[in-house]
Amino acid sequence: MTEKTEAPSAKDHHDQNLIARPGSRLEITTPALVLDLDALDANIAAMAAKAAAQGIGLRPHAKTHKSAAIGRRQMDSGALGLCCAKLSEAEALAAGGLDRFLLTSPVTGSRRIERLIALKQRCRDLMLVVDDAENLRRLAAAAKAQGVSLDLLIDVDVGQRRTGVASTEQALALAGIIAAEERLNFHGLQGYAGHLQHITDYGERRQASHAALGQLAAVRDALEAAGHPCPIMTGGGTGSHAFDHEAGVLNELQVGSYTVCDVEYDAVDLAGDGASPFRAGLFVYSRVISANHPGFVTIDAGSKSIATDGPAPEVVSGAPKGSRYSVSGDEFGQLDLPGEAEILKVGDLVILQVPHCDPTINLFDHYHCVRGDALVALWPIEARGASF
Amino acid sequence: MTEKTEAPSAKDHHDQNLIARPGSRLEITTPALVLDLDALDANIAAMAAKAAAQGIGLRPHAKTHKSAAIGRRQMDSGALGLCCAKLSEAEALAAGGLDRFLLTSPVTGSRRIERLIALKQRCRDLMLVVDDAENLRRLAAAAKAQGVSLDLLIDVDVGQRRTGVASTEQALALAGIIAAEERLNFHGLQGYAGHLQHITDYGERRQASHAALGQLAAVRDALEAAGHPCPIMTGGGTGSHAFDHEAGVLNELQVGSYTVCDVEYDAVDLAGDGASPFRAGLFVYSRVISANHPGFVTIDAGSKSIATDGPAPEVVSGAPKGSRYSVSGDEFGQLDLPGEAEILKVGDLVILQVPHCDPTINLFDHYHCVRGDALVALWPIEARGASF
Repeated sequence: MTEKTEAPSAKDHHDQNLIARPGSRLEITTPALVLDLDALDANIAAMAAKAAAQGIGLRPHAKTHKSAAIGRRQMDSGALGLCCAKLSEAEALAAGGLDRFLLTSPVTGSRRIERLIALKQRCRDLMLVVDDAENLRRLAAAAKAQGVSLDLLIDVDVGQRRTGVASTEQALALAGIIAAEERLNFHGLQGYAGHLQHITDYGERRQASHAALGQLAAVRDALEAAGHPCPIMTGGGTGSHAFDHEAGVLNELQVGSYTVCDVEYDAVDLAGDGASPFRAGLFVYSRVISANHPGFVTIDAGSKSIATDGPAPEVVSGAPKGSRYSVSGDEFGQLDLPGEAEILKVGDLVILQVPHCDPTINLFDHYHCVRGDALVALWPIEARGASF
Repeated sequence: MTEKTEAPSAKDHHDQNLIARPGSRLEITTPALVLDLDALDANIAAMAAKAAAQGIGLRPHAKTHKSAAIGRRQMDSGALGLCCAKLSEAEALAAGGLDRFLLTSPVTGSRRIERLIALKQRCRDLMLVVDDAENLRRLAAAAKAQGVSLDLLIDVDVGQRRTGVASTEQALALAGIIAAEERLNFHGLQGYAGHLQHITDYGERRQASHAALGQLAAVRDALEAAGHPCPIMTGGGTGSHAFDHEAGVLNELQVGSYTVCDVEYDAVDLAGDGASPFRAGLFVYSRVISANHPGFVTIDAGSKSIATDGPAPEVVSGAPKGSRYSVSGDEFGQLDLPGEAEILKVGDLVILQVPHCDPTINLFDHYHCVRGDALVALWPIEARGASF
């Protein structure tokens, strides 16, 4: 087991069982989340090269992978820092050795603000977004009381209707509060068009994304005219990475899913040429656990191993072409086999491409990391379950 | 923090943040999985009393709660042992101090069979099901090689089409193999009608369940006629617990969801009188994280905190009657408010009843345990993610 650079989890009885015999990926105990490190490396390098060519920065979103090892590779490839959706995600990755974060959703509540300030003192960079005046006043009071400066972006709703200010007036009001507080530093805007990332058609997605960025630019222009410069303009994602730079609004991208891809993103024409610039890198390995009927077998991965909010997983290998997976309860999947196929037998390995990477990764404590046919490492998913 | 009988998880930075200020459940850091211990105690007592009155045993299914503390309470109330869906689930609960298990799905593969034998040597009881001749031969060979006896049930498919033998002939063949092996002991049959548990109408569910149990009885009769007595007849669930005993086929029930209930089971007429004999005991506490639009707010619980395979969670408190939750991504939920309601503000606590308990519990590392308004303990979910 080379590359086992991460400290193992404390669940020792789990670790021993997960690793299986080191050596062959075909002997991994199932169900398991398997990460192809060659694909991961290629995807990180491809995105870094593309961003460099576009003249745009990368602040990759760790909500996808929740892993210090992957975050470190992104930093090593030139990332400005990592995005985290929740404070606990950043805390877990900081415990794993990372120290430059942007928290992309509001940090609310007195207890959480205490934790924020504690984390800030351990990090090189810790920025966060705000979209509410009362929350901002509480952040200001805590920063003052603790003698700590906070680095803020204003989150702008560019059509997703989830977080962010809903008007330019509100953005101006927040910027005014920040400017009046000595311990608060204003750095710019976040505008994340999450609702557009999975529009499959390239041209349609590009047009919708540019319209959203136009909204963001209008807010920026109003703030700058009012004396609030916006050096950081952050947003975008894997779905819009190919054309976000064209609008000249963002100067950094919050890409996440490109690291491993998934069935959902494979349906999106990411580069406008029908081919994905990224490689599928994340799989659930499963095995046949019961085979007593013609036409289907039962495998050992159900909704506790594969997030069910997306499409069905793709059968990559181990079953005849045309085999189709469906959930058969929390622990099992049904694999319907094409008419003429002979029945698989108990123990046969079936490899599935993950349908939606973020919530599927969040079901596992570890990545089983492979290169070619070799199982080379077990990486903990430090921020698994870190949603608070 | 009384009742903190479980060792804390090694993720110390998590634990510190999860506990919040001990004392009030209203200060729990969100999103959090909250277990009402009064409801849990009442549900465990009610099911134990009902089973005693029915003259049937209980072997509750731990796949629901994945917790040693809850399993211990079930054992203390007279359970015969605990069911586990996967070997790793039993391993995790054994590490938590429990030692009587039935593995309700086949244990396959040489590595897993090694682990099975290791676990068997640490347990008072460890039974498992079989449904495949080749798997059975491998179990026999391993048991012989290690000098360990294995206690087996034959799993019978009573219509769910997931695991289990598909014919009486197959059951007879397996029983013959078991009888011929010195190290294998045959104890009876499992027939789990999981596909019928959520039929909402009592009479319809009862009729379908009795038909399934009739299939199981026919297999039992054939086996006993062939000289294979079946002292253990196990199956059933929360959905069919009220009438499973009537058929005189099962002598123990694998009930699970009754411990905490969920929105999905609340739709089922469990006792035939329109009222649930069990109390809702499991909630996701969430808070408003963004409130910039009329008509809805964004809360901090999304598909990484609430399993999305069931109905929507019910809004229990913190929002006007008629408020409706929908997922707004992996980390967020949208709470649509009824027309006339005033907008909630950032930080407001919204309590949701869990829609489907098993996979939602599997998203969290801990239960926040409350009695009345007091937060009294943090229980680890030892078998979370234990699907292998």
